Amino acid sequence: MTVLVLTCEQDVTADMVVAELDRGGIPVVRLDPADLPGPVALSGEYVRGTFHGHLSAGGRLVSMNGLRSVWVRRPGVPAARAAEPSDWLTEESAQALYGMLRSTDARWMNHPDAARRARHKPWQLRLAQRSGLPVPATLITTFPQAARDFAVRFPDLVVKPVSGAHPQEPPRAVPTSRVAPGTDFSAVAFGPTLLQRRVAKRADIRLTCVGDRIHAARKAVAPDAHPDEVDVRFASSATPWHAVDAPSSVAAGVRAYLREAGLAYGAFDFAEDAEGMWWFLECNQSGQFGFVQIESGQPIATAVADWLAAPAPSAAPAPAPATGAGAGTAGGR
Amino acid sequence: MTVLVLTCEQDVTADMVVAELDRGGIPVVRLDPADLPGPVALSGEYVRGTFHGHLSAGGRLVSMNGLRSVWVRRPGVPAARAAEPSDWLTEESAQALYGMLRSTDARWMNHPDAARRARHKPWQLRLAQRSGLPVPATLITTFPQAARDFAVRFPDLVVKPVSGAHPQEPPRAVPTSRVAPGTDFSAVAFGPTLLQRRVAKRADIRLTCVGDRIHAARKAVAPDAHPDEVDVRFASSATPWHAVDAPSSVAAGVRAYLREAGLAYGAFDFAEDAEGMWWFLECNQSGQFGFVQIESGQPIATAVADWLAAPAPSAAPAPAPATGAGAGTAGGR
Repeated sequence: MTVLVLTCEQDVTADMVVAELDRGGIPVVRLDPADLPGPVALSGEYVRGTFHGHLSAGGRLVSMNGLRSVWVRRPGVPAARAAEPSDWLTEESAQALYGMLRSTDARWMNHPDAARRARHKPWQLRLAQRSGLPVPATLITTFPQAARDFAVRFPDLVVKPVSGAHPQEPPRAVPTSRVAPGTDFSAVAFGPTLLQRRVAKRADIRLTCVGDRIHAARKAVAPDAHPDEVDVRFASSATPWHAVDAPSSVAAGVRAYLREAGLAYGAFDFAEDAEGMWWFLECNQSGQFGFVQIESGQPIATAVADWLAAPAPSAAPAPAPATGAGAGTAGGR
Repeated sequence: MTVLVLTCEQDVTADMVVAELDRGGIPVVRLDPADLPGPVALSGEYVRGTFHGHLSAGGRLVSMNGLRSVWVRRPGVPAARAAEPSDWLTEESAQALYGMLRSTDARWMNHPDAARRARHKPWQLRLAQRSGLPVPATLITTFPQAARDFAVRFPDLVVKPVSGAHPQEPPRAVPTSRVAPGTDFSAVAFGPTLLQRRVAKRADIRLTCVGDRIHAARKAVAPDAHPDEVDVRFASSATPWHAVDAPSSVAAGVRAYLREAGLAYGAFDFAEDAEGMWWFLECNQSGQFGFVQIESGQPIATAVADWLAAPAPSAAPAPAPATGAGAGTAGGR
């Protein structure tokens, strides 16, 4: 049973995990969908109620029915490196590749449907609430008056994008910013705006959960940090990430979140307040773990490799109902 | 409890369903996401572990918690009619609208995740097999030799796109075509190709399934039809669609298919062969039903309205696991 890794050529994080799998003697096929068609080829046959599919990459041929798991790490756009690329060829190649892979019984980290759903910030906030994780008071609105009322109730606010990165090429991260007192909220009418109570944080928490394994890391806010530095991605800090234990309520919440989300992997960001409470900010289903593993020494790549190598269905099921329960044998002839 | 209809302004099919809902006294809010922000506005607040969201359209304000069902009929691109449209504004508006709607307990026809997954033709074929529906022998490949071998085993073939419509603006339907004898399959290497045994059909079947209600309609192939006319969408035929009973095995297969797919609505295309066997060709989760209702007299709009109006969770569950089972109460403060 083979592990399929979908990622681009230059991917140090994937290298780390593939090295772990190699050490364990687990067969791995690594390919970039951008190389389909061409260096990557596929074939699938539906005859008499059965399906047999194959993938070819790097001179290796692997049966789709023999896939143990699929790691959607950082795949290129299908057919992006074709001799004559086009939107049409990309669509055809994407549907062929992912359509067949979706038909297999392989476990996914993460399943494309779960991954796509997990990008919705409003949905994240609600799921975090339902999972028992503390969520700072948040408003998403196009009503200026709703924004004004919210700012009266919660005077110290940050504003952040409703979606993730700006869809330019390459995508640009939009920083979270503090809302100045007396801000005029009229422009809210021109675009949905996410306002959130600012957590006066003493540390940032990055919690990486792989299956059931939790790796929490903490980065203290510098004593002289300006309160306007709310976004750890853009903050200047010499403090390293170091491993900490997650409070049991947070661990339970995080596991509930991933289970309900149908995710096998999630990188959670929390803000730790002065009382030690961890406030949920977001969960990135494709969040990087290389930097935190290097600074904290946590064996996250090993956890990913172990999950991918596990033979049995895990606690993080793919949300595709059709892959598990066949409704009967086919009547083809 | 309100029915939310997401569609563009000019939509006769939606008009039919809304008229049915009006007759039944069911509150309906109809809006086009293209009008957000602007004529359509939204607001959602996450405070102390709870969520309260509202939508405003056409002078009406509706609570998201009070939504009975959401019909994703033919919605425009979010923010497409904004004063200053941009990819960024579209992304922000889409995430705000759909992210909040995904957090509600409303039933969906069809849920966006299920709808997206259902577009994958290779996945459709496998699910049809697993649901016990006869599928004509099919090959999807980038290997010329696999195509040649397949053509030896099944000499009478059609070729069709792996994906659906060509992604030009407006999208263009790509017809299914017959493969000429002696075709050179070398070009298969340049793009995934779907080859399928041609069913020598005596009729086309359109089966529209709404929840559990099945409406099958049949259109006989004209006696003088040329065998190259394989695609009913492009065939010249004066024969109307008329209602027929679906064989019980097909009815069971179709219901199993929709259940596994997490779809509340599906328009199935079958080809009926000389022996009366119905061969699965595809299932379009957003397939039109106006033309078949008009010709066959089947009450499909009523079935859609009844499904949308039903108060209780139906047999076609949304695939979003988080909306149903909350993992606990929230710890916000």
